[in-house]
Amino acid sequence: MSSRTVVRGGLVITAADEIHADVLIEDGRIAALAAHGTPAAEAWTADRTIDATGKYVIPGGVDAHTHMELPFGGTFASDTFETGTRAAAWGGTTTIIDFAVQSVGHSLREGLDTWYAKADGNCAIDYGFHMIVSDVNDDTLKEMDLLVEEGVTSFKQFMAYPGVFYSDDGQILRAMQRSAENGGLIMMHAENGIAIDVLVQQALARGETDPRYHGEVRKALLEAEATHRAIKLAQVAGAPLYVVHVSAMEAVAELAKARDEGLNVFGETCPQYLFLSTDNLAEPDFEGSKYVCSTPLRPKEHQKYLWRGLRTNDLQVVSTDHCPFCFVGQKELGRGDFSKIPNGLPGVENRMDLLHQAVVDGHITRRRWIEIACATPARMFGLYPKKGTIAPGADADVVIYDPHAEQIVSAETHHMNVDYSAYEGKRITGRVETVLSRGELVITEREFTGRAGHGVYTPRSTCQYLT
Amino acid sequence: MSSRTVVRGGLVITAADEIHADVLIEDGRIAALAAHGTPAAEAWTADRTIDATGKYVIPGGVDAHTHMELPFGGTFASDTFETGTRAAAWGGTTTIIDFAVQSVGHSLREGLDTWYAKADGNCAIDYGFHMIVSDVNDDTLKEMDLLVEEGVTSFKQFMAYPGVFYSDDGQILRAMQRSAENGGLIMMHAENGIAIDVLVQQALARGETDPRYHGEVRKALLEAEATHRAIKLAQVAGAPLYVVHVSAMEAVAELAKARDEGLNVFGETCPQYLFLSTDNLAEPDFEGSKYVCSTPLRPKEHQKYLWRGLRTNDLQVVSTDHCPFCFVGQKELGRGDFSKIPNGLPGVENRMDLLHQAVVDGHITRRRWIEIACATPARMFGLYPKKGTIAPGADADVVIYDPHAEQIVSAETHHMNVDYSAYEGKRITGRVETVLSRGELVITEREFTGRAGHGVYTPRSTCQYLT
Amino acid sequence: MSSRTVVRGGLVITAADEIHADVLIEDGRIAALAAHGTPAAEAWTADRTIDATGKYVIPGGVDAHTHMELPFGGTFASDTFETGTRAAAWGGTTTIIDFAVQSVGHSLREGLDTWYAKADGNCAIDYGFHMIVSDVNDDTLKEMDLLVEEGVTSFKQFMAYPGVFYSDDGQILRAMQRSAENGGLIMMHAENGIAIDVLVQQALARGETDPRYHGEVRKALLEAEATHRAIKLAQVAGAPLYVVHVSAMEAVAELAKARDEGLNVFGETCPQYLFLSTDNLAEPDFEGSKYVCSTPLRPKEHQKYLWRGLRTNDLQVVSTDHCPFCFVGQKELGRGDFSKIPNGLPGVENRMDLLHQAVVDGHITRRRWIEIACATPARMFGLYPKKGTIAPGADADVVIYDPHAEQIVSAETHHMNVDYSAYEGKRITGRVETVLSRGELVITEREFTGRAGHGVYTPRSTCQYLT
Amino acid sequence: MSSRTVVRGGLVITAADEIHADVLIEDGRIAALAAHGTPAAEAWTADRTIDATGKYVIPGGVDAHTHMELPFGGTFASDTFETGTRAAAWGGTTTIIDFAVQSVGHSLREGLDTWYAKADGNCAIDYGFHMIVSDVNDDTLKEMDLLVEEGVTSFKQFMAYPGVFYSDDGQILRAMQRSAENGGLIMMHAENGIAIDVLVQQALARGETDPRYHGEVRKALLEAEATHRAIKLAQVAGAPLYVVHVSAMEAVAELAKARDEGLNVFGETCPQYLFLSTDNLAEPDFEGSKYVCSTPLRPKEHQKYLWRGLRTNDLQVVSTDHCPFCFVGQKELGRGDFSKIPNGLPGVENRMDLLHQAVVDGHITRRRWIEIACATPARMFGLYPKKGTIAPGADADVVIYDPHAEQIVSAETHHMNVDYSAYEGKRITGRVETVLSRGELVITEREFTGRAGHGVYTPRSTCQYLT
Repeated sequence: MSSRTVVRGGLVITAADEIHADVLIEDGRIAALAAHGTPAAEAWTADRTIDATGKYVIPGGVDAHTHMELPFGGTFASDTFETGTRAAAWGGTTTIIDFAVQSVGHSLREGLDTWYAKADGNCAIDYGFHMIVSDVNDDTLKEMDLLVEEGVTSFKQFMAYPGVFYSDDGQILRAMQRSAENGGLIMMHAENGIAIDVLVQQALARGETDPRYHGEVRKALLEAEATHRAIKLAQVAGAPLYVVHVSAMEAVAELAKARDEGLNVFGETCPQYLFLSTDNLAEPDFEGSKYVCSTPLRPKEHQKYLWRGLRTNDLQVVSTDHCPFCFVGQKELGRGDFSKIPNGLPGVENRMDLLHQAVVDGHITRRRWIEIACATPARMFGLYPKKGTIAPGADADVVIYDPHAEQIVSAETHHMNVDYSAYEGKRITGRVETVLSRGELVITEREFTGRAGHGVYTPRSTCQYLT
Repeated sequence: MSSRTVVRGGLVITAADEIHADVLIEDGRIAALAAHGTPAAEAWTADRTIDATGKYVIPGGVDAHTHMELPFGGTFASDTFETGTRAAAWGGTTTIIDFAVQSVGHSLREGLDTWYAKADGNCAIDYGFHMIVSDVNDDTLKEMDLLVEEGVTSFKQFMAYPGVFYSDDGQILRAMQRSAENGGLIMMHAENGIAIDVLVQQALARGETDPRYHGEVRKALLEAEATHRAIKLAQVAGAPLYVVHVSAMEAVAELAKARDEGLNVFGETCPQYLFLSTDNLAEPDFEGSKYVCSTPLRPKEHQKYLWRGLRTNDLQVVSTDHCPFCFVGQKELGRGDFSKIPNGLPGVENRMDLLHQAVVDGHITRRRWIEIACATPARMFGLYPKKGTIAPGADADVVIYDPHAEQIVSAETHHMNVDYSAYEGKRITGRVETVLSRGELVITEREFTGRAGHGVYTPRSTCQYLT
Repeated sequence: MSSRTVVRGGLVITAADEIHADVLIEDGRIAALAAHGTPAAEAWTADRTIDATGKYVIPGGVDAHTHMELPFGGTFASDTFETGTRAAAWGGTTTIIDFAVQSVGHSLREGLDTWYAKADGNCAIDYGFHMIVSDVNDDTLKEMDLLVEEGVTSFKQFMAYPGVFYSDDGQILRAMQRSAENGGLIMMHAENGIAIDVLVQQALARGETDPRYHGEVRKALLEAEATHRAIKLAQVAGAPLYVVHVSAMEAVAELAKARDEGLNVFGETCPQYLFLSTDNLAEPDFEGSKYVCSTPLRPKEHQKYLWRGLRTNDLQVVSTDHCPFCFVGQKELGRGDFSKIPNGLPGVENRMDLLHQAVVDGHITRRRWIEIACATPARMFGLYPKKGTIAPGADADVVIYDPHAEQIVSAETHHMNVDYSAYEGKRITGRVETVLSRGELVITEREFTGRAGHGVYTPRSTCQYLT
Repeated sequence: MSSRTVVRGGLVITAADEIHADVLIEDGRIAALAAHGTPAAEAWTADRTIDATGKYVIPGGVDAHTHMELPFGGTFASDTFETGTRAAAWGGTTTIIDFAVQSVGHSLREGLDTWYAKADGNCAIDYGFHMIVSDVNDDTLKEMDLLVEEGVTSFKQFMAYPGVFYSDDGQILRAMQRSAENGGLIMMHAENGIAIDVLVQQALARGETDPRYHGEVRKALLEAEATHRAIKLAQVAGAPLYVVHVSAMEAVAELAKARDEGLNVFGETCPQYLFLSTDNLAEPDFEGSKYVCSTPLRPKEHQKYLWRGLRTNDLQVVSTDHCPFCFVGQKELGRGDFSKIPNGLPGVENRMDLLHQAVVDGHITRRRWIEIACATPARMFGLYPKKGTIAPGADADVVIYDPHAEQIVSAETHHMNVDYSAYEGKRITGRVETVLSRGELVITEREFTGRAGHGVYTPRSTCQYLT
């Protein structure tokens, strides 16, 4: 049976176009677009009509970097797939790609199945998985091929966190070589964790235990170094590379240089690096712990290089690295030892709004907003054109966005399962009004009308962003 | 009265998307797109149905650099607006932006009116004008403001051709300052003509008169130098810059560096630099003269840097710099003195095909083909979204392109009014089949069904490509 | 008849070595060096013994850039060859290379002969000449060959001062080509004077007439641009290049880049750029005019890049560009119009001391002090090993320098013929005590014991600094 | 009792000067230099006069990188301190700095004492030691301080050879931090050994066992990567860095970039990289094994970048990395498995001659020859001004060099204890004639007149090359 929805009167914004068009949704997919007021548009009848006059009609956001329920440092990220995806929907995001984790000594399969089970039946919006590879060996490499076929087409490795997620350069090279063959994309946490751990121990030995030292020891130069190294290893392997959560201007410079040479090297940054800084890490009374994540926040002067990178396309994607830990009981684990603070920030609900604010502030254009938040993450991770755009044939993941609404971000009002907001008190112009996921209303005029289990696992094809 | 055309069954390719969609045209504009086989698509009725099954449906090409009937070196480019635009249509181009010329001592107005008159009633496709500014002074600067309002929003200056089109750095700076205020875009012929003329005279004095010396004296370093200088002057003026016909890898490097810094600096290259080389200039029996243009063809090793620049978006546009002179009677003016060979190549008919061949050869993707040949030139010069895309509301400038057809380029079969082809004998996969301009058939299954005068002057808004 | 002087007990510092050695002077030349206290040293007898215990024994300074009696802007630099060279000696400089000026329409010969005559019989120390080429033509180019043979082996051109000294890029290229053949070295005033003059006129039209606008309109980017252009022209010509008075960090970057590529490109800076800034240009009551020179002083943040360039050898020479104009009656010509302020600063007496202060401040080492102030200018301009070092066979141009003396720079006490000091009130550690020129005492324990006419014209060989 | 030697009539060449001077030696040290024919020179009497007319008088070479008797891969480098230093003297080198080795689990002290014992009483020329640090821990770091005081002021670490000499980035950072405090200089073998070992195993698994695969798996990009990483770690530590045996142009580029930024980063290359290439590694019949060393020989196109680096001072030192293994019985250990070929080449005898050939060939100047082979290694490693120059007070390590003699390099005639020459058959212009070490004749007109035990251990001060 066919259900039809028409979204009338809005400005459809995609990465490429701004179109005054009505959007026709049939059976969960975008069936057609027609210019406002044309006979073609007028002829449409529908079961449901949404009036978007004066609003933007944009693709649902694709957040390519979340960590729901991640075990870390003896605790778990505080959002479940249920609470986290609901919050995502509130924030205009209709797809997340979360990270399944391989434990050392176990297979990728085991890790992936665990994460399938965590998510299954719980999500309000669609989701996919990247695979964290903690243990590269002959068996793992073979499993990578199978996962690519299964739709898990990207693999994260860590140059940080020795003894936990850390891979050495040989393991990285081997995984990259494999991905060069099977079409997978290596995502890299690029920090020289071996050197950083020396600095951490030295700082603690000097009695520097406050959260702000987290920012001091994880030096920008050591992010840039690792970024450079990952690029060179990828070049040796003949593989593309996606560097996650880039925060240092020196790392952006490494990406820019590699891209000038025509390499398939990509960079993601996150709202926290664009809007927050080491000033936050230095907040008194252990409040700085709220902002502890890795790569760390940087001094304010780095922000303009990140914005520039987003404009010059030396950075292509803004994801959240959503990984919330409550201040009470979780962040507090690191009182007296910053290295024990669980790493991560909440953000999955705030991304689309913060980036719209960047449009208002003149950092990026409207189309670029959609590109870095919807279209490119979808292309990068093989979800295009199902996700990330509004075009005939695409999934009807559609957000009606009110560009004139005013809001103040607060933990009081947000929907993420965490007791603080990293952006508490920040004024933002623009707000999500209505959200459709495959044609179904998840948020209806700022009321949650979705349900756990509507969201389905979405296998992905390989990277569609290579040149 | 309303006329409706439906293009059925094709793969719609834009700069952003590849969509299996039918396209509905109403009254000369794209009214709607609908996914193949959807009820929405099936419901359409039309006066005319074009079957595009197995074909590409692409936006008509936008050639942002042509010189119809240009007076140069005592003769005139051999294509009139009538013959040139007809040939353009044959080649899948539905919009050209030609250059009106200010003569030294005369107003911009006079020059522009002359070109309006040349084109009026003669064109098979739509057209706009850039203005060549040969004489910067207080009056000219004021006229620039008026022209921007009138829809002539880009101004070309020359760092070459002293005594003819040449502007000195002060004149360039003043024009750039003005464009920074009025929104105009300065287009630059970037070669150090003062230094080159010294080398020309020295070469001739040594008896080096053959066409190949044209390529030797116009050194790549002197293109790169002028490119760098133009960038710095634009930076001082706070103005954007568009460098035309980039041919040297060293010039690409200058653009890449400026763009890494976030400057609004753009570069165009042309098919002749991508497919031809100094080997052609060295062809015997004065055949090299066919390839004399400025900037000159470069040694083959430059080509890969141009392709790379197109992939990394350090070059954004491919135009033709179409400026044909017949070998007999025109190119021959320079026998015995290469500096007297009229500068220019025919190409307006070949661009879309050559760039499709680049897709086949793996240099660029299909979407990038449309981006550099249609969408970006339209955005760059204020024609978007009327031109350069297939989206509801856009002009119905549509090409049905057969990606599997085979052709051999030849002066025997081309439609440009010139007695040779720069690509004689080249095999190309892909061919234009049908072309619509604002919904009217100009080429119908490889038959010319258009007419002189269908094409209309199209005023332009200011550059839409700034970041 | 043989005269012998021994300098005992000092620390001999050259560009290469710091040696505890006695120095034997015979007949105006360094005859021998012997380690303190060795039988070899003890065996020496002499007519005159100078005790340098606790002092430095250094080569006399070589100031490769002075303008005595230069006609400029309707007046003349206030130091004659007599007063200027006497002041130089006071400051530990024993050789200057001044600039003879070709007037447009006249031969190099005429200009050079005029300058020979100005200097002849008036100098307290040795001197040579560069030639300012204002008018490149076939005759001038031939004269360049003759001048090189005659010992005038370097030629200055200006990319600034249109209508006065300005050469266009063609004239520059031709002169460079000639120097590539005859061994001459082109020295370049690298500022885009054509563009700057536009900005000057615009500033004056806005009523911005104060000296500080001199610094604003002569933009760093336009110095860097001209530096880049000169480098590229030199590369086309296959000629070495020496850029005078580099003041902008962006220009240093251009030099560094060219030198990384192995080009014979050299840069000179001056004490005023190392120690003064636009803050001085902004001094009230027209005092800023005292600091008007071109290239202009830059904001303070440029200084560290100049020091770095001196350490990395991206800058090789520190000269003074000594060109004094009295505040009263000369600088005042520009009240109400900064463009009429004669360009130039006094400094020939201060250079060695200011650079010793830089040693004290940790910017450079002692050996580097001698290298940039004595040895490299001598090598650069073909005076080595007569000048610039203390080695057997060299001219006995020797300074006994007290590294512990304290002084305060002041117009009250300086010996230059100008009514102000650019460094008024500056405290400096270190002072010249005694100066020998070809073995004769010019300054004896801070008393002038030289004479006008002792100094002789010193023909130069070609550049000895090429790689 | 005093012994006096005079070297008459030669051209004294140092890093700084070329002087026509006689040299007086008293008691093993340079007492004085005097210009030829001056009364000062004529007055000298001596026990021994050496006629150097028509010859060069140069400082004895300082080879800062040798491995006598090094245990490697189950065998020992074939030159003992006796045979190796004798051969060095034959080649005009009068000082070597060899590497003492710490074994994992043992103290630096033990390693150093072992090497003291190996050398003691056996050397024909003076020698010092660097210390290879294989095991960074709290104890080792404390020992570093003691060694610096003792005159072992440089410490080598390896980013290659995991399981043998390899240090991880944390160990490197800690050693660098320590050296930043105690004045030591970290020397780095910069290759990403972890990644390379993966490539080695993959090559062997593919049956690629020939010596030429040694060159293929040890990729230039992985040398450049490690070079970059070492630079960044040094930057974090605030320490200077000396990169040994640079062979890849990409690594030179990393050094150049760092040096442009003013970092105290230095690079050494070796004759084998300047004169040999992967062509040698590909020689048939396992002859390629003669050229197996790490970093490996590179394709020929790298050579010009090394020469350029030597000219631009992006490379400062040429050492030999002398580490000979006989073809028969030693290199042969790697038949069927290139990874088992002992790494190293003979060269201590050839360095001065090969670099003189580079003077003849126009790659470098005479003074630069002395600078990179004598003066800078002496300064870099704290031996200046005792070693590396000819100046009053310096040790009388003097070579009389015949610049016109012709020789052919051959294992037949060389004095190193190894059964092949890496330069077999190469014609060289220039030859060592006579060598003095601290005033004593070691080589006398091409006869060995020295003795084991003349050479003494020479403690060193800290690096004298910092800016």
